[in-house]
Amino acid sequence: MKRARVAYNGAIHDAQVEGDTVILADGRRVAEDKVVWLPPVSPGTSFALAINYADHAKELAFKAPEKPLAFIKGPGTFIGHRAVTRKPAEAGFMHYECELAVVIGRTARDVKAADAYDFVAGYTVANDYAIRNFLENYYRPNLRTKNRDGCTVLGPWMVDRDDVADPMNLDISTYVNGAKVQSGNTRDMVFGVPALIEYLSSFMTLSPGDLILTGTPDGIVDVKPGDEVVTEVEGVGRLTNFIVDDETYFQRS
Amino acid sequence: MKRARVAYNGAIHDAQVEGDTVILADGRRVAEDKVVWLPPVSPGTSFALAINYADHAKELAFKAPEKPLAFIKGPGTFIGHRAVTRKPAEAGFMHYECELAVVIGRTARDVKAADAYDFVAGYTVANDYAIRNFLENYYRPNLRTKNRDGCTVLGPWMVDRDDVADPMNLDISTYVNGAKVQSGNTRDMVFGVPALIEYLSSFMTLSPGDLILTGTPDGIVDVKPGDEVVTEVEGVGRLTNFIVDDETYFQRS
Repeated sequence: MKRARVAYNGAIHDAQVEGDTVILADGRRVAEDKVVWLPPVSPGTSFALAINYADHAKELAFKAPEKPLAFIKGPGTFIGHRAVTRKPAEAGFMHYECELAVVIGRTARDVKAADAYDFVAGYTVANDYAIRNFLENYYRPNLRTKNRDGCTVLGPWMVDRDDVADPMNLDISTYVNGAKVQSGNTRDMVFGVPALIEYLSSFMTLSPGDLILTGTPDGIVDVKPGDEVVTEVEGVGRLTNFIVDDETYFQRS
Repeated sequence: MKRARVAYNGAIHDAQVEGDTVILADGRRVAEDKVVWLPPVSPGTSFALAINYADHAKELAFKAPEKPLAFIKGPGTFIGHRAVTRKPAEAGFMHYECELAVVIGRTARDVKAADAYDFVAGYTVANDYAIRNFLENYYRPNLRTKNRDGCTVLGPWMVDRDDVADPMNLDISTYVNGAKVQSGNTRDMVFGVPALIEYLSSFMTLSPGDLILTGTPDGIVDVKPGDEVVTEVEGVGRLTNFIVDDETYFQRS
């Protein structure tokens, strides 16, 4: 099942999605272009992984890490499907990152990798933009690079865990203006979903709704205002986002 | 005014504090040792600063940063006054960090340092423990070092902004079992409160309730189970915490 959160008719709704139709919790059926798509979860804690694909590490001329390079993102950075993301004038190189995002379903502490999927509610797609010219050090990306308002797109929906046969074998693709620019597969993660849950839960408690963005493969290029960026994870969803400049974003013109 | 959040008689209450008395919002007066002290705010985003006192940078043999080294903490790491914090068996060196914590009071974007205090609701005290033997790189402390459950103590209360004459001239002190082990003053911050608000709000939006932990001066020593650790910021408060081992924490004995 595809579970979404949308704003419609003056309220926020939990919803299911079937084809182009959004079915609100009260049964109303709404065309998908009549709603405002919100991130499908409001995470308590949002973890992100740096350099979690060997090919991306190589692309950045960085050795793959020995432990997961996990960091935390703030809630203000998340927006939903079909929203616009601002490329600030000060940004030189800004790249998308298509990622499989894992939503935690049960409180998890000291979970072993073999049991990890029991603690997953489902999966969604993330586009975790980075403003590369502010990256001083690959060890841990700083907030100007990875935590700006509206720079982490999430959705369109969460797919239930049991609807994804093997999360460690899913194609990852990004399209800019229809052209495929990034292509990978979750099997190439340095630390896979079970290992990440084991690692994080070994020293802290994961709570229902917490989110793990599992990193991106290589193939990152600069985006520019006017671009349509679609990030897709096979069997999970296609997430659309649009890049705008400062004037358009603030509607100053 | 000292504003607290406490659990008492089956519910969570906003409260004020006068001396040893906690005055619940409905007027009930309760002795301070009869409540469970919670963190005085539930931040949307909690920022922490690494290496924000020149003497502490020197102590760690690390050059003071050119820009604030800000990172984000998850909500699970916060606990209130008088709680216990676990020192895990795997922790070699674990140290307290007494810090002035700033609570944002108004939505802040592109705020200049000269106006920054207008966006502050008040101040509280943080004890931001670090488990040093997991620190691989000073550039950005990792989650095993700085984000474990219950390893960031906050409180006892928030003092209103206007009750603190000069937040950039407050003594900072830590006492372990009554002996003073850390002594500094907020005037020695590399980036002061106004500069931090200007910096963070220059690329993202700060929201009411967001928290900025402003870093710690030098004087850090290892703590051990059984220790009482009191962190104090002049004119703000004295925050008490107790270190326990795994067996005591999980009540396994």
